[in-house]
Amino acid sequence: MVDLSRGSALGTSGASELFQLMRNGQPRTRAELANLTGMARSTVALRVDELMKLRLISAVDDAISTGGRPSSQFALNPSARVVGAADLGATHATVAITDLNGVTLVDHHGPLDITAGPDAVLTWLVEIIRKLLADINRDPSELAAIGIGLPGPVEHSTGRPTNPPIMPGWDRFDVPGWVQQHLAVPVLVDNDVNILAIGEQAYSWPECKDLIFVKVATGIGSGVISGGLLQRGSQGVAGDLGHVQIPRGAGTPCHCGNRGCLEAMASGPAIARQLRDAGIDVQTGSDIVELVKRGNVDAIQAVRQAGRDIGEVLTSWVSLINPSVIAIGGGMAQAGEHLLAGVREVVYARAMPLATEHLTIVQSAAAGNAGVIGASMLAIHHVLTPEGIDSMVSAQK
Amino acid sequence: MVDLSRGSALGTSGASELFQLMRNGQPRTRAELANLTGMARSTVALRVDELMKLRLISAVDDAISTGGRPSSQFALNPSARVVGAADLGATHATVAITDLNGVTLVDHHGPLDITAGPDAVLTWLVEIIRKLLADINRDPSELAAIGIGLPGPVEHSTGRPTNPPIMPGWDRFDVPGWVQQHLAVPVLVDNDVNILAIGEQAYSWPECKDLIFVKVATGIGSGVISGGLLQRGSQGVAGDLGHVQIPRGAGTPCHCGNRGCLEAMASGPAIARQLRDAGIDVQTGSDIVELVKRGNVDAIQAVRQAGRDIGEVLTSWVSLINPSVIAIGGGMAQAGEHLLAGVREVVYARAMPLATEHLTIVQSAAAGNAGVIGASMLAIHHVLTPEGIDSMVSAQK
Repeated sequence: MVDLSRGSALGTSGASELFQLMRNGQPRTRAELANLTGMARSTVALRVDELMKLRLISAVDDAISTGGRPSSQFALNPSARVVGAADLGATHATVAITDLNGVTLVDHHGPLDITAGPDAVLTWLVEIIRKLLADINRDPSELAAIGIGLPGPVEHSTGRPTNPPIMPGWDRFDVPGWVQQHLAVPVLVDNDVNILAIGEQAYSWPECKDLIFVKVATGIGSGVISGGLLQRGSQGVAGDLGHVQIPRGAGTPCHCGNRGCLEAMASGPAIARQLRDAGIDVQTGSDIVELVKRGNVDAIQAVRQAGRDIGEVLTSWVSLINPSVIAIGGGMAQAGEHLLAGVREVVYARAMPLATEHLTIVQSAAAGNAGVIGASMLAIHHVLTPEGIDSMVSAQK
Repeated sequence: MVDLSRGSALGTSGASELFQLMRNGQPRTRAELANLTGMARSTVALRVDELMKLRLISAVDDAISTGGRPSSQFALNPSARVVGAADLGATHATVAITDLNGVTLVDHHGPLDITAGPDAVLTWLVEIIRKLLADINRDPSELAAIGIGLPGPVEHSTGRPTNPPIMPGWDRFDVPGWVQQHLAVPVLVDNDVNILAIGEQAYSWPECKDLIFVKVATGIGSGVISGGLLQRGSQGVAGDLGHVQIPRGAGTPCHCGNRGCLEAMASGPAIARQLRDAGIDVQTGSDIVELVKRGNVDAIQAVRQAGRDIGEVLTSWVSLINPSVIAIGGGMAQAGEHLLAGVREVVYARAMPLATEHLTIVQSAAAGNAGVIGASMLAIHHVLTPEGIDSMVSAQK
């Protein structure tokens, strides 16, 4: 028997099927769309009207006609909607409004205290998104989705942080639910290294399908794109670089409860501790970067050794997923070539030649913007999927 | 301007689009298919006829009618075509003919000498496939594709082995080209660990999206499924477990040219070497398995240590891709719980608790059949993609 409810829900997806053909920006006529999909011409006309009403597509220059009435062409209209993108760190935030191609229309960089808790931080975030929208004269109704990166583990399917070590009050907090009470759009939340990986790939390596983004800062983490997909793993903890044990770390306690973790040896605080043990007065990662820039040999050697430690773990990971790019970012990457040199020294010496033949190890090129680019991509991807288009079409009816 | 060649090629995909809706076996009427796709009824009728002519779908019991002429239902016909599947090892081969659901219709297990070179081995393979087809009274024209696993690295896109260490004469040999001179169907070639991973997942863990299959035999390798996709990496060498260096291996030369590789410490020949150094007369992996089964304490301890060595590398890999299943197979896995115990001891003690909370480490359940199941899946997947269906539809016209 025909299941009508299902039939009509999927019938709607005719619109999203057409949209997917126009998403890359190539203009199409109704006749082409009918040919390409096998849909009836009358169905195509209806679906095109739906997408036009949503402004997701717009008419472009008339197609060359073989005579008779000129036939209109249609293509993605990237300014049809905007998305909000937020890269929230421990002490800083970047928030942007972008179009549907991920082009930043307006943004804000500023201090943020993540330990103020979800109510305070998200109240501020909603306000800044509203303010940025007003700055570019876009109505909140034009906002299609919001992507948010947080500095801790997040269960992506629910958008809830899970035991985030540096985010008191955020554990299991329903971030999308809270935000949606103020801005009623889909809210996608992920941890900062995942959005950094997505952003770095979109910004610098759009053709690369296998990339590891390593963030070296107060903690050490990574975002992993393999086979063209961001990998979250079965429990959402894929890419947990900081808590792999390394031989040099033997016995050193880590805040995770284990001993000998990479993070306990090669993060900003770990390098600072080692330098203090050697009698040098440093407190933060920025102090170390400053010392390195002034040519302090102890600091340079400590940073290079941290690079070697990170390279130890990456050497094994290179054998597992055979990436073509490893991008190093985060505050400690600002120490320049010394961290990178340590990573390269170990990976190129110890990994299999076949796996490193075409492997590029570089400093993050998107740098400070990688996170917000990634958060924007997360939101846009959600908006432009067949399901996203369908829900907009249904909402309009 | 309408690109007619493209339009018609994609127009054909109407048939494959309908087919994808019936692939899971759920019967559909023409009216349902029209509703589900938005295609015109007349188009649906044409496409259904094309698929019927190819026997890829068949009519099933009449649908419950609301009066008037009963409407036929159509569904995947798994016996429409057969595929050939071959798991070629260094000294043994399994070859099977399966239907389009991957059900084995007939198979052959027997000795094989891969060092006889591609001409001899592939001549034999073509003959055995022809013989198996004849055994079940299927004509070679019913063969839709062939999947082949080889015991060495393979460039999957071309089907050519690349520097396979135990396959003299096979380097860069065009396996698909050679086979297609005799059986003119698509030929998919991959390395043995990749087809083992695909087969183990299909056979035992169909819901699992993140699985590592580890083969411990003359060599050590792994096949990696992450985010539901087999991962090949940028150079096709993802999952190269055997040549990751381990601390215990320091200095021990490996046949790859490096020192301290896992394979040089924990493979069958490596364990045999260590036992011989201790004055025990063993030559092959089977000898070791035999000794373990007779309760020889030295052999048991050596196998358990090999498990620990493998666990060392897997501990880091667990942090990278956060799998839910690690399956251990290959000849040395027949030593039973001892190898597995070593792997578990290290991984559960040293990997992050969150990553191991739901991690299952088991012996391969598909065991000897995993390879041929995987090779069959490789072939079926190729046949039933939209592109595969399209090419059958075009060939028929």
